[in-house]
Amino acid sequence: MEGQDILYEVRGKVAIITLNLPKKLNALNQDQYTLLGKLVERADNEEDTVLTLLQATGRYFSAGANVADKKMSNIDPKVLFSHEYWLSTFVARNVWLTELFHNHKKILAAAVNGPVIGLSTGLLALCDLIYAIDTSKVYLLAPFANLGLVAEGASSATLFHRLGWSKASEALLLAKPIPGEELERLGFINKSYNGKFSSTEEFNQAVYDELVGYFENLHEDSIFQNKQLLKAQRDQWITSANSREVSRGFYKWLEGVPQSRFVQISQKEIKHKL
Amino acid sequence: MEGQDILYEVRGKVAIITLNLPKKLNALNQDQYTLLGKLVERADNEEDTVLTLLQATGRYFSAGANVADKKMSNIDPKVLFSHEYWLSTFVARNVWLTELFHNHKKILAAAVNGPVIGLSTGLLALCDLIYAIDTSKVYLLAPFANLGLVAEGASSATLFHRLGWSKASEALLLAKPIPGEELERLGFINKSYNGKFSSTEEFNQAVYDELVGYFENLHEDSIFQNKQLLKAQRDQWITSANSREVSRGFYKWLEGVPQSRFVQISQKEIKHKL
Amino acid sequence: MEGQDILYEVRGKVAIITLNLPKKLNALNQDQYTLLGKLVERADNEEDTVLTLLQATGRYFSAGANVADKKMSNIDPKVLFSHEYWLSTFVARNVWLTELFHNHKKILAAAVNGPVIGLSTGLLALCDLIYAIDTSKVYLLAPFANLGLVAEGASSATLFHRLGWSKASEALLLAKPIPGEELERLGFINKSYNGKFSSTEEFNQAVYDELVGYFENLHEDSIFQNKQLLKAQRDQWITSANSREVSRGFYKWLEGVPQSRFVQISQKEIKHKL
Amino acid sequence: MEGQDILYEVRGKVAIITLNLPKKLNALNQDQYTLLGKLVERADNEEDTVLTLLQATGRYFSAGANVADKKMSNIDPKVLFSHEYWLSTFVARNVWLTELFHNHKKILAAAVNGPVIGLSTGLLALCDLIYAIDTSKVYLLAPFANLGLVAEGASSATLFHRLGWSKASEALLLAKPIPGEELERLGFINKSYNGKFSSTEEFNQAVYDELVGYFENLHEDSIFQNKQLLKAQRDQWITSANSREVSRGFYKWLEGVPQSRFVQISQKEIKHKL
Amino acid sequence: MEGQDILYEVRGKVAIITLNLPKKLNALNQDQYTLLGKLVERADNEEDTVLTLLQATGRYFSAGANVADKKMSNIDPKVLFSHEYWLSTFVARNVWLTELFHNHKKILAAAVNGPVIGLSTGLLALCDLIYAIDTSKVYLLAPFANLGLVAEGASSATLFHRLGWSKASEALLLAKPIPGEELERLGFINKSYNGKFSSTEEFNQAVYDELVGYFENLHEDSIFQNKQLLKAQRDQWITSANSREVSRGFYKWLEGVPQSRFVQISQKEIKHKL
Amino acid sequence: MEGQDILYEVRGKVAIITLNLPKKLNALNQDQYTLLGKLVERADNEEDTVLTLLQATGRYFSAGANVADKKMSNIDPKVLFSHEYWLSTFVARNVWLTELFHNHKKILAAAVNGPVIGLSTGLLALCDLIYAIDTSKVYLLAPFANLGLVAEGASSATLFHRLGWSKASEALLLAKPIPGEELERLGFINKSYNGKFSSTEEFNQAVYDELVGYFENLHEDSIFQNKQLLKAQRDQWITSANSREVSRGFYKWLEGVPQSRFVQISQKEIKHKL
Repeated sequence: MEGQDILYEVRGKVAIITLNLPKKLNALNQDQYTLLGKLVERADNEEDTVLTLLQATGRYFSAGANVADKKMSNIDPKVLFSHEYWLSTFVARNVWLTELFHNHKKILAAAVNGPVIGLSTGLLALCDLIYAIDTSKVYLLAPFANLGLVAEGASSATLFHRLGWSKASEALLLAKPIPGEELERLGFINKSYNGKFSSTEEFNQAVYDELVGYFENLHEDSIFQNKQLLKAQRDQWITSANSREVSRGFYKWLEGVPQSRFVQISQKEIKHKL
Repeated sequence: MEGQDILYEVRGKVAIITLNLPKKLNALNQDQYTLLGKLVERADNEEDTVLTLLQATGRYFSAGANVADKKMSNIDPKVLFSHEYWLSTFVARNVWLTELFHNHKKILAAAVNGPVIGLSTGLLALCDLIYAIDTSKVYLLAPFANLGLVAEGASSATLFHRLGWSKASEALLLAKPIPGEELERLGFINKSYNGKFSSTEEFNQAVYDELVGYFENLHEDSIFQNKQLLKAQRDQWITSANSREVSRGFYKWLEGVPQSRFVQISQKEIKHKL
Repeated sequence: MEGQDILYEVRGKVAIITLNLPKKLNALNQDQYTLLGKLVERADNEEDTVLTLLQATGRYFSAGANVADKKMSNIDPKVLFSHEYWLSTFVARNVWLTELFHNHKKILAAAVNGPVIGLSTGLLALCDLIYAIDTSKVYLLAPFANLGLVAEGASSATLFHRLGWSKASEALLLAKPIPGEELERLGFINKSYNGKFSSTEEFNQAVYDELVGYFENLHEDSIFQNKQLLKAQRDQWITSANSREVSRGFYKWLEGVPQSRFVQISQKEIKHKL
Repeated sequence: MEGQDILYEVRGKVAIITLNLPKKLNALNQDQYTLLGKLVERADNEEDTVLTLLQATGRYFSAGANVADKKMSNIDPKVLFSHEYWLSTFVARNVWLTELFHNHKKILAAAVNGPVIGLSTGLLALCDLIYAIDTSKVYLLAPFANLGLVAEGASSATLFHRLGWSKASEALLLAKPIPGEELERLGFINKSYNGKFSSTEEFNQAVYDELVGYFENLHEDSIFQNKQLLKAQRDQWITSANSREVSRGFYKWLEGVPQSRFVQISQKEIKHKL
Repeated sequence: MEGQDILYEVRGKVAIITLNLPKKLNALNQDQYTLLGKLVERADNEEDTVLTLLQATGRYFSAGANVADKKMSNIDPKVLFSHEYWLSTFVARNVWLTELFHNHKKILAAAVNGPVIGLSTGLLALCDLIYAIDTSKVYLLAPFANLGLVAEGASSATLFHRLGWSKASEALLLAKPIPGEELERLGFINKSYNGKFSSTEEFNQAVYDELVGYFENLHEDSIFQNKQLLKAQRDQWITSANSREVSRGFYKWLEGVPQSRFVQISQKEIKHKL
Repeated sequence: MEGQDILYEVRGKVAIITLNLPKKLNALNQDQYTLLGKLVERADNEEDTVLTLLQATGRYFSAGANVADKKMSNIDPKVLFSHEYWLSTFVARNVWLTELFHNHKKILAAAVNGPVIGLSTGLLALCDLIYAIDTSKVYLLAPFANLGLVAEGASSATLFHRLGWSKASEALLLAKPIPGEELERLGFINKSYNGKFSSTEEFNQAVYDELVGYFENLHEDSIFQNKQLLKAQRDQWITSANSREVSRGFYKWLEGVPQSRFVQISQKEIKHKL
């Protein structure tokens, strides 16, 4: 619920969206991902903002999809293995969220206070500016191959182009976490405030202050047009990856692969990457 | 329901999928489009077929989405204007069906016995081989601008590349039907059996016989590899159009545009293109 | 001058731009091409229009660049062979006009009453809908190789994709006129009113009436979004051809090639293609 | 052998290459395809020519690869199923010939006096200008699926883009001949001299005369630069198709598929498409 | 003026172009940018060189466009807000310079002795090899959003692909300078001679010596062909960005945005990024 | 010979291919490159493996093509300057090996124990995961411009995209070795075990152990599908570079350029880059 699970605020020229489920490590269930999308939409339509800032509370930026939340065990198995169920949940949400982040007209910035996992990795990798609290506290994890899924959120495009062939292979083929130091070295992170802040709140404030400082002397329409020009360089990558990824991931759910992986993980037959 | 609304049969090397709602002009409601997708999937996985043939009964190939069928008036308006509703219906189904047709591994052929409308136009335009009963009886109609929607089924890519810039503009910007004669002239139709058949059944049989004749002397793996080589030429067009189209069309439904267009059409305030 | 050389009028949902130099066969000098661009810009910014219609008076649609008009003989030869002169005239105008036509947000239609030559061919080929008075009266001529120039107005992209490899080769490598019959057969022309009209005025009116008829039942934002979706399919072709063409054509002018070709043509040493 | 199997002559601004094995329907064995490549290279390097004209003698333009000529039965089976053999014959020749035709700097024209089959179809489809003696006497046949092979000579790119998705599917998935009438309708043929000539010689002369007429009034460097601009539109299609095709076709030969198809054809177990 | 503002010299296999306005921090006015272009052209046409080296004198590599130089206050306001003025200055020069640098046939190297700003950033980013005097003395600044302009010199393509999505966003959306250390880390700089040289002259000499050392044992035509092969990987990015950028930047000048920004900056209402 | 020059072993889920010519620094002659290709093919077809690991024995990973091995002096000069010879050796092998590595369905990893030179650089750069024994012991050398050749193994694409424009220019235009430290900084190397191992054997074992550890908790089909999704991002780069490179390199051999460079190198007239 907005105003609780995810906060929304406009402060000056900035729309701030805060993932606020610290106890759940900001893992988001389906409704919460949809809410996130709605708030990014709302930020896109703000009349006076220049920038949309994604931030979080607690120790994690976002632990990805909260599958536990939606008790699959309560769902009629016939439903659980139906095309209709996975189309209306997985496919629909992913294709929409990815296009939504990709098409955002404002500067899209993220203040990354901790680990980023799963679909949230894909969404983060669609942001223009990425600030980290501390390279030692931050990592990306795309655990799709661990969970029996495939790349989500156009991460097969964004990780490949933002981290390079080698690291994207590690991230997606081996489901290895990519530590903050490497994210910085490879240019994925714009700046890391190593050791400067003891709390997420201070960090979030610092990112806000830094960003506000930049655009007060800038012409807003120039910013928006530069964003369009940059977007033109990546448009084909992202739109085509988005379409390909959802149609392949869908069959994994339909075949029951991730479902049984979750059971195996909970029964410790296989290790969770987390 | 399979075996009734849409028929499925394997005859020799051909999987035949028949739209069988002649009284509804083969307009398909959501469940029926999903069923169509499932049957195309099934055909893709047949062990011994080389070709999948789409055909229909009655006078129309397919009149597109049967919106009337799903009584929108019965749906709680809160649901009807929710992200969740349109994501789970419109977005999910369209992105999946488009990828599904695009990725079909067999030869995908269509026997077009009459008009083709709406999403069905997009799906037809993803077929490899297109046979027409008679150019005078066949047309394509992409009435999206009439209904307050946008291009579907990657038709912004396929009509542009298969009919050319001028005719695709007519089809999508003016929502004009493209008559069979032009489809033939522009190379969209492989062959039209003008005047040869008095019934759809005879026509369907003739297409089947013609196709079977071709591949009995062909090496099947060569066919499948040639399909992959041809698909590589169009892959970027279709996947990127798919992702773009669904995210734009979604907002139309969410804003209630097509819903109110349907009311206006039913009240004759605006003319339906049909 | 607007209101004289080129007319501008908004009639209902249509901005009408009329090339009105019938005695000069609607050959345009530099100022007139710039004026044309300004009027297309103005049409793009009209609040209430859906479509921009380019038409002409007299027997020609546009005979291309009117070089004679700008008496080159009056220009100081030092200027005439300077980078500055050709950058500020040829390069600037061509790159801008091409992007301008390509980025037009409305439906861009043309009522072609006669031959189209040179840069005007490039601009015509950036229109969405093309209507011809009579296939026997209309042809395209891209006489660049005759004049010692190279393709202009992104015609190396648009002719290739709209007429096909073979005819584009004829048009650009052989500087052959492409007759109306072939333009129709290849789908470049949306419709030709063969034999219906004895005057350009009647023809222009008929095209206007036909177009107006289409969009009164259409949702305007759907049209504009479909245009964006179609444009995404051709964006790379046109922008990259534009940049390449102007930089190559520039050197031709700088080397004095077309200048001396004009002299040779006027002295009948070589034949003009017209 | 040049001067016998394939003739080479420079006449004015035209290099003429004549396939001269009328008794073999201008089917070319490996050495003859290599010779063809060498002569196209030589034409590319002629100092004074503008155009390279491919023509043939007899009733066929080229019946494709003459497999019979190289008695496979005489080859040690160990060699015949070795990587080395097929790399050094099939892969090497095809990738080189395709790039060679694609990169030709002059106008590349063909006078098509009869059927064109196999690899020769791919090479023809890389020509800029294509003239036919008579639509009733000319067809394209890409019999790869019949012979257990895959598309060659970048035909998976050129047929798709020059004939369109539907006809290219017929040509490559069904190995159907595409008759001259369709080649003309779809814009593949620049001009057909239907019924005008009773002999190939007269036809060849007429094509030569027609072509010479065009460029005498043209600036040669403009032609070559326009060719580069047009080539930029198709470069990615052809180079990537070339690489993909040869690596797939190679495995067919290595697996012995076409070899056993030839046996079956000779024993009439399967029908040859010819 | 060549020989004064910008020096040109051929030394062995290297054409050396030296920006020589140290008092103006090598800010270039329009004529000087045109001169730079002419000298790059000249270097492209040198018969015996392998490499073109751009260098500068003084503390800055180039402070970008010297707008002050051309006293806008002296220009008739009617001219200053005319299409003609900005087409003939801004659009023409930028599109030409960008293509010129992109198409340079020799190795294009830069010895960067200090900050690089504005259009010069775009041009630098089109060089193949980039040497820095000291990472602490060098930065890139693309102040377009500060000045009310948009990306120039295809920098929306080159910064995106050479610095990555994150840093290019900083550079273009926030108009932040990118310091030398980051340019090195991200692979933009080939080598930095940190602390080695006390003068620009020594540094320039060292770069020259280093470069000459490399190619004395190389085959020149191999170098040029490798350059073509590398260029093929980036051609679409740059040509399409070039066309898009100039047409957008043009409207900024036409609307008077940068003009009034300059006034505000001079009146200290907004801070200049420099 | 397999089992001697190049070893092949399946251990668990890993196919291990070991270059085993330590005395020749793992320089491979033509037959050995072909053998390498065959073994990569075999690994691709293993039923139970997930990953293919390329490793080497001795101090070098691979010193590239062993030209000395094939005594060119023994070859009839007529053969040595024939199209047939270079097509069947150079062109065929390179285009096939490049496609083969590019299309490998398993994870492709390399344990790099020392320098990598020439064609082997191109092949290494087609691997997904790259591990180095020690950044101080490893470098890439693409000595094509030194030898009078052009980029091979799609290295004009892979080096450009994996090392960036600047370093790829150094590597290919200057034929400079790229040291391990830079390979790591630029993200080409996934991990370097600096100082950990005194022997190649220990290093190879460590890479094996590390890799095996990763995928035991992963779903194999997810890995393979992620590989397909990543491959879609680079497919056009590699296939088109492959086709372009071989056709250009071929002419170098045909002209005798590298042959005479080898003589000059052996006579110390020019320096070998090694």
